[in-house]
Order: sequence, then C-alpha cells, then structure tokens
Amino acid sequence: MRFSNLYVKTLKETPKEAVVESHKLMLRSSMIKKLASGVYTYLPLGYKVLRKVETIVREEMDRAGSQELFMPVLQPAEIWKETGRWDAMGPEMVRLKDRHNRDFILGPTHEEVITDIIRNDISSYKSLPMSLYQIQTKFRDERRPRFGLMRGREFLMKDAYSFHATDECLNDEFENMKAAYSRVFERCGLGFRSVEADSGAIGGSGSQEFHVLAESGEDEIIYCNSCGYAANLEKAESIPTTPVTNEETREPRLEDTPNIAKIEDVVEYFGIEASKTVKAIMYRDLVSNKVYMALIRGDYEINEVKLKNSIDETELVMLTDEELNDLNLKKGYIGPYNLDSEGITIVADETVTKIVNHTAGGNKVDTHYMDVNYGKDYEAHIVADIRNALSGEACSRCQKGKLDSARGIEVGHVFKLGDKYSASMGATFLDVNGKSNIMTMGCYGIGVSRTMAAAIEQNSDENGIIWPVAIAPYIVDIIPANMKNTDQVALAEQLYSELISAGIDSVIDDRNERAGFKFKDADLIGFPFKVVSGKLASEGKVEIKIRRTGESMEIEAAQLVETIKKLMKETT
Amino acid sequence: MRFSNLYVKTLKETPKEAVVESHKLMLRSSMIKKLASGVYTYLPLGYKVLRKVETIVREEMDRAGSQELFMPVLQPAEIWKETGRWDAMGPEMVRLKDRHNRDFILGPTHEEVITDIIRNDISSYKSLPMSLYQIQTKFRDERRPRFGLMRGREFLMKDAYSFHATDECLNDEFENMKAAYSRVFERCGLGFRSVEADSGAIGGSGSQEFHVLAESGEDEIIYCNSCGYAANLEKAESIPTTPVTNEETREPRLEDTPNIAKIEDVVEYFGIEASKTVKAIMYRDLVSNKVYMALIRGDYEINEVKLKNSIDETELVMLTDEELNDLNLKKGYIGPYNLDSEGITIVADETVTKIVNHTAGGNKVDTHYMDVNYGKDYEAHIVADIRNALSGEACSRCQKGKLDSARGIEVGHVFKLGDKYSASMGATFLDVNGKSNIMTMGCYGIGVSRTMAAAIEQNSDENGIIWPVAIAPYIVDIIPANMKNTDQVALAEQLYSELISAGIDSVIDDRNERAGFKFKDADLIGFPFKVVSGKLASEGKVEIKIRRTGESMEIEAAQLVETIKKLMKETT
Repeated sequence: MRFSNLYVKTLKETPKEAVVESHKLMLRSSMIKKLASGVYTYLPLGYKVLRKVETIVREEMDRAGSQELFMPVLQPAEIWKETGRWDAMGPEMVRLKDRHNRDFILGPTHEEVITDIIRNDISSYKSLPMSLYQIQTKFRDERRPRFGLMRGREFLMKDAYSFHATDECLNDEFENMKAAYSRVFERCGLGFRSVEADSGAIGGSGSQEFHVLAESGEDEIIYCNSCGYAANLEKAESIPTTPVTNEETREPRLEDTPNIAKIEDVVEYFGIEASKTVKAIMYRDLVSNKVYMALIRGDYEINEVKLKNSIDETELVMLTDEELNDLNLKKGYIGPYNLDSEGITIVADETVTKIVNHTAGGNKVDTHYMDVNYGKDYEAHIVADIRNALSGEACSRCQKGKLDSARGIEVGHVFKLGDKYSASMGATFLDVNGKSNIMTMGCYGIGVSRTMAAAIEQNSDENGIIWPVAIAPYIVDIIPANMKNTDQVALAEQLYSELISAGIDSVIDDRNERAGFKFKDADLIGFPFKVVSGKLASEGKVEIKIRRTGESMEIEAAQLVETIKKLMKETT
Repeated sequence: MRFSNLYVKTLKETPKEAVVESHKLMLRSSMIKKLASGVYTYLPLGYKVLRKVETIVREEMDRAGSQELFMPVLQPAEIWKETGRWDAMGPEMVRLKDRHNRDFILGPTHEEVITDIIRNDISSYKSLPMSLYQIQTKFRDERRPRFGLMRGREFLMKDAYSFHATDECLNDEFENMKAAYSRVFERCGLGFRSVEADSGAIGGSGSQEFHVLAESGEDEIIYCNSCGYAANLEKAESIPTTPVTNEETREPRLEDTPNIAKIEDVVEYFGIEASKTVKAIMYRDLVSNKVYMALIRGDYEINEVKLKNSIDETELVMLTDEELNDLNLKKGYIGPYNLDSEGITIVADETVTKIVNHTAGGNKVDTHYMDVNYGKDYEAHIVADIRNALSGEACSRCQKGKLDSARGIEVGHVFKLGDKYSASMGATFLDVNGKSNIMTMGCYGIGVSRTMAAAIEQNSDENGIIWPVAIAPYIVDIIPANMKNTDQVALAEQLYSELISAGIDSVIDDRNERAGFKFKDADLIGFPFKVVSGKLASEGKVEIKIRRTGESMEIEAAQLVETIKKLMKETT
C-alpha cells in the first residue's frame, strides 16, 4: 500500500475524551473514529489489525475442532423469557420493538440462540459433543462507555458454545479451549495470564479468565511465585498472616473515641496494629432484602464477590446512612459486640475469629470497644474467607510460594455452564439406553476488539504504538529519506516491490514530506520495522529500525527480504 | 472435515414456510435456520458458502483500490436528520432508544456515517479520490419478510462509497466498480447481467444493477439481442410498434358499452386491435397531492417508474373508487376526450399521440368514444415514454436488434450519488486554487447473503443444490460405498488425506449409512464432486460423479487429486 493512498490522518494532539493509552493512540493514529459514545468505526488501519486478530482466533478455534456459524444480532424476546434473563438483564441489554410491536433485543451474548438451535437439531448422544463458535458484533448499553474499545457499546466478540452428554466430556472441552486460548494470545504476541475466576451466580466448578498484563488493567491478578496458581483478586485465596501473640484474652471495655471513625485513626488513637482491629460493614441484598454485617480484620479489604458467594446472594449494596440510622447504627462505630443483632446476619472473615483482643465499634457514636474476642464475646452466623488476598501473603495452593500481584485486562473467559440454559430451554438428548437427559454446556468468549486495545495498553511508548508483528497492520514501512533523491526513491520502490512479492505486508511512504515527519507517523502507527532508503542508497544499502527495541542496522538492500523474514521470527 | 462431526441435519421434507428454491434447499440442507421472521442463523455449511462469497468480494474490492473499514451498526439519529432521511425513511428503518433516551437506528445503509467521517478527515483535493468499503450486517424491517435470505430483515451487504473532486473522476470510479462487480460475479461462477437501472428520486446520471439470471427472479430484464443494451424493465426503452394504417381521422362518437370496462372486452366488442384503444389510469401523489391521468395504448402496460420520473413525483398511488366518484369518474369508462379536466394533469405515452382513431372511455358509466384523435380532440400536458418495453420490440439503442427479456435477481447496484449527501452534510474540500467545493460521491452495494441465495435459484435441480465450484462449502465429498468393506474405507481415508494435503476443501462421509443415503445428502448439499470408493476399490479405482452434469467417470485412485484439480478448472 502506498502511504499517499492509505486512509491515515494522524493527529498530533490527543483528543480530550481519551484517558487510556490505547484509546489515545488509536484515535491519534486514525485506527478508529468515534460515531457516538462507545460506538466506533474501525478505519482501514485499525480494521487491518482487527482482522488479523480475528484470523488468529478463527484458525485456533477451527484447529480446536469448533465449527464456525453466524447467529443473528436481532433476537426475539421469547427465548430470553424461557431462561428468565429477559427480566434478569438490566438496562445494559438493548431492547427494541419491530414494526409489528414484537419485542427484540440486540444480542449481548448468544446462549439462548445456540441452545434453541441445538434443542431443535440434536436429539441423540451420537451427535454429541458439539462445539460451535462465531465472531459477531455484540451490544451492551453501558451506563458510562469509556476507554475507547475497552468498554464500548458495540464490540466484536468470539463466542463459542459446547454441548455434551457428560461432565467429563465438558471437562475435556474446557481444557481443549483453555489450550486454544493460550495459543491465540501467544500467537498475537501478547504477555498474558490465565487465572481462576469467580463463577458468579451461575455456579459450576470451572471459570477461567485470560488477562493481557498491563499496568492500566482494570483487574488485579494474584499469582504465586512458586507454583502455577493465579487467580483474579475477586477469587484469589491466600494463607493470611496471623500476628503471633502471647496475650491473654481480656474483657471488653467501652472507650470514648471522639471523631475516631476510620481504622487508621483507631490504630493511631490506641497505638495498636491494624491486625488487632475489626471493621464491620453493613449490607442489604436487593433481592432477598436481608441485612448483613460483614466483619473483616482492619488490615484487610472486604471482597464482595466472596461475601456474596458465602451468603448466596447476588445484589448486595451497602446500607445508606439513613438505613443505618433506622438500625440505631452510625458509620465508623459499628461492631459485633453488644449489638442488637435481630434481623442481622453476621458474616466474619476467618481471620477475625483468630484475633486475641480486638477493637470493635461501640454501636454508639464516638465509642469503641477494646479487647473483644470472637467466640467468647460474640459469634457470627457464617465464618468464611471474605477478604482480598494480599501480595506478599503465602500461597494457599502450594503452601510454599509467596503471592505477587499484577494488573490485567480481561480478554477471554472460559466457563462451565452446566445445565443452566439446557435445563430451562429443554435441550435434552437420548442416551445410549434411550433415556432422556439434559445436555451439559460450556461457553467460551474472547473480546476480539478488546484484545486489539489490550495489545496497545501492553505495547506502547511515548512515541506511539509498538504492534506485535503478528497483528501489526503492516509489517514494514519503507521510507525514502529524501523524495528529491532519485536513487533513494528508486531503491525504496524496488524494495517495496520485493517485499510485496515475498508476501510481506508493507507500506511505502511516498509522501512529499521530510524524513522526520514520516518517522513520527511510522512510530505513532507502530509498524514493527522501518526501512530507510537514505544516504547509503547509492551504495545499495538501507537501514532497518526495529520499533520495539529501537535498534537499527545497516544492511545490503539485496538482503532486505531475508533479513525482515528473520526479524519477524525473532521479534514479538 | 468428517461428515460424522459436521454440523448437518438434512431434512427430507420441505418446511412449509419456504416458497422459493433457495429457501427450501438451504433449510433442507441445514445451511440456515430461522430464529425469527426474516432473521436467520447461518449454520456451519451455509456460513462456509457465505465466507467464500465474502472473500471473493473482498479480494476484488481490494484489487479495485478500495480500502476496507468497518462502520457501526448503531447510528445516532442526528446524522440522519442532517440529510433529512430521519423523516423520509419509513417503518423499514429500525429505530430504538438507548438507556439515556437518545434516538438511534440500526444501519440499513451507511451514507450518513461515511460522509460524517470524510467531512471530518478530508479537507483537500490532495486526499481525493478516496474509496472505502465494508462488509457489514444491515437491517431492514420488512413488512413481510420472505423468500429466506432473499428478503430478510438482517442481511449481509458489501457497501462501498467513493468521494471525488470532479464528476470525471466519479465516472472513472463508476466504471472501475462496474468492472470489479463483473469480476465478482464471474468468479462466483454465476450467470449474470449488468443492466441500466432507474436512478429514482436521487437523480444523477448513472445507476447500474447487477442481476443473477434465474426464472424465479423478481425483476424483469430487457436486453437487445444485437447490441449490448440491457436494462431493468422499469427503465428499459424500446422502439414501439406502430400499426400501419391509411385511415382518415374521423370525428369522435359516443357508443353504449354496457359492462364493457376492460380493454379486452372493448377490443372484442368493437372488433378492433388493442393498439387502437387507449387506457386511462388515474393517480394521486401522496406528497404533492396532485391528480394525474396517465394514458397508455391498450396493448402496453404502464411503467410507474417512468411515469413518476416524467412528472417528478415519488409517491404515486392509484385513485380509489371513492376518489374517482368525487371526480364523477367510473373505473373502466375514463378517457381524455370530453373530460372535465380541471385539476387533472394528463400524461400521455408517446405512442398514444400516434394512433389514428382510437377508443377512449366515455366519462359516463357504460359508454366509450370511438374515433378519438390526439391533437385534434384533446391534448396532454406531458407526452413521454411511460410504458413498459416489450420483448420482441426493436432496440432503441442500436435500432437494429430485437429486444428479449429475462428474469433476474438484483445482487449488486452501483450508483452515482452526486452531491446528495455531501451537500447536506457539508463534505467540502479545498481545490487546487484554495476554493471550497462540495465533493461528489458514488455508492456501490453487493448483497452478499442474497448472492448466496441467488446462486441457488440459478443452480439447483430436483435433488438439491448445484454449487458453483468457487463458492461450494466443500469441493469434494468422498463416499466409501460400503462401510463394512475395509478396502473401500481405507482407500477413501487415504484419498481424503491426499485431497486435504492438496488444499482441496473436502468431506469424507464416514457415517454408518448406506451409499444411497449418502448420495442423497451429497446431492442435496450440492458438493460439486462425489468420489465413490466402491467395488473397484480393490483394483485401486474410484468413481467421480459430477454434480452439475450428472456425468461419472472411473479413474485410478492415484490420479484423483490431479483429476479433481482439472475438473475444478473446467466446471463452473
């Protein structure tokens, strides 16, 4: 492609709306263009990247034995009513009516559609297992779309669904898909981690996320520096530190703590360790309407996902000041001791039960108890792990390693669904004995457009994007340094032809601009290799500059194709 | 792909909903599955075909120098208000509101979006011309979706848009696109015709349609058997037959014609030729509210597209009996002579003006005039070609050839838009003199999913689909005739490996079924070649059956790959 024809309008300044690097750089390099909040056009350069990611995903899904199909965007309400999700889905689901006033939605996911297809087409164990996938546009009406392609309202997903006669068979496919996902992100040239994730309301035993590692990632990942354990913070477990003490348990006593509401103030006021304090946080579930008190050691943070799972609730919200008032409670001074606990379910983190002499809110403004002890002075209805694991803690899996943390961008999720959809929609099959059974299902997603954005979050510098070779829009940008020098231009043109003939996606920057201007555009767009036909052109030599390392090398022009092929293998 | 794994559930019986062949056969061969009226899933076999068509389209668009991008499905109302189409589009446009109550539509086409992009990015003649395309799902809420993929509510289109500084440049791109379209349909292996089409309300000088020829086509195409002239009936011109006569003009006289309202009855009653009669048809335009009388010779049919163009109206409807009554007119007895023509604009087809002594409605029930003559007895406000050309008439283009007619399915449309969108949306550029000008535009569409359906309408028989080689889901179906015969199975497996290694998309039918059953499925699905490993397997021979011709040949198994490659070139 000739740069003069290429649809590129690079911007020097970053549009104000962009906060994260991928968004800034994709706008500046004219890879995407905003049409509406969270709705973007992929311009030619950006679409080339998207298609390369798509191709890698497609090849690996095919290799894994999944068959590609293409389901509609428009989905009738009826199938969503069958699974109960018509009511369960909130305002993020885009709903509309057709001209005959029938309810439709724009697919945010396709479990209902695929299960409807399978229940009609498959009736025997002989046709199982069956794995199907599609690469399709999805819609989610985010309240606050942001971060460009990272959290848009219209985005590209690969979603796969598998149907099985047995759980063992599902387990095999789950591992098969995990392996395929690893190949996808490896081939994209991305640093990633596969981590255990919460199964959420769906339950089931298996849920694994794939994260591209990047400082700007929204998720925290906890991993062991010794064994392979890695988990999303929402799910990560640890062996907590337990402060050693030879104190005897004492009796609770009430102390005045005027304006001392926060843990750090309590710690300072009493001159104790945070690990000797207990925070109480009050919740209500919007569905069951039950009220909960969650107790957590002062040096830990509460993990709401774990908390929800421990009490089997899904819609927890913290009590408002008014609601606390109705219970005669005041934020900062709430505790499990001497509490009028009627109607309150107390959930204690397991670490809380092991503290000797801890503080607790006095359940009256400006007071705290000292020397409270679990078991002796109060009890909880439920004891569970409801805290966030911390970097530096011991690994609960291998008991040896230390936990570390990193930030990640979720780009893939594999999930054992079990019979959640197949049961409610009646996807059954006759087994070898002619008995009817419910199929068991898995689902497997990759955010295709999000992977593109995540690649930039992980691979950029102050000059622009550093595309991994595998997903770069073009591999080589050939730059005649001086457009008035016919030798330089002629050599550049010749090398351009050679690269194209060798099947290497290349651009020649034939614009009448200075070399420096072209370099800036090349770095911003992120071509892996610049080839400069400059002063040495008369000697038949060119310079190769490697975007990722900044290295440059002079080579004989005749060696270019060979050298680029070699560099493509060596460079991510 | 092994047939036992392939997602195929063929049906013996045709689902009742299907009327046309492509719909019937795609349902029966499990290429598509209905989710809602006019909304289909492409199952794996069907999606393979769709992707092959898509690839051909993409390659030819790239070759033509158009750059691929990907615009959103969701489009904000604002840009449609700028062009006035927010109001002009009827209930076929899918409208919805987002969670913040903002108006959106699901793109039925993307002129507004692309023009919005270009007006922001391009400001100089140096960046023109620019041609961009996408392959994207489109939405049209048809009142009565029908014929499967032929007229659905969600369908796949390739749409391209070009922007130019001059009309000459647009003309060049228009020819470039026509050539690309011909290559697309040629490569798909389809019989097609490029025909002149009406430019409709948009005006402009160029509009060309591409039709796949098929008996079931909704459109009639008129073409010259001598020169290259071809046009959609709505636009086709002809040299009308003019009956030779040596009659003198006579004076009109009123005759009683009780219950003689139709032309054929008038002809019989008076014993004259239909070419000596004139039909009068009354219309009203819904926008201007003006009333028109269209006059046409009795042996012709009125062409409403030509009529609309001749009077520059867009929303013509025939008057109802009540409306006729208000004008003291009665269907079957209306005529231009002795008419109270106040408020009625008379439009006569040019042939009407040349009849010597024609009949006309008496403008009273059960009466007709004889011997009326244009010019002498009445005049029209407008004389124009408002009739359908007829097969058998002389070609008006070359004056020599005879016109013939065929039926076609519109699969492509190229269009000179001029400044319709660029003017209303302010897509301007500075020319070489620094003066601001409005860009001129072209747009170019291919119905990708419709092409797939049209291919079947053109290529099927009583046994099923006959895919052109270029877009067949698989090229070869290898069938071991007797699954219990190890020689036959072993040879089939070996040949399957050889074909796959040679890069020939093949299926091996490894199901434990009789050969006849497998043949039926193969013919229904429409693989171009069946390779049967049967009784001659022990001698190292197989049979090739060619789906299109029905021919079969015995060959040495060792010659299979070579023979198939040869057949792929020879067979469409």
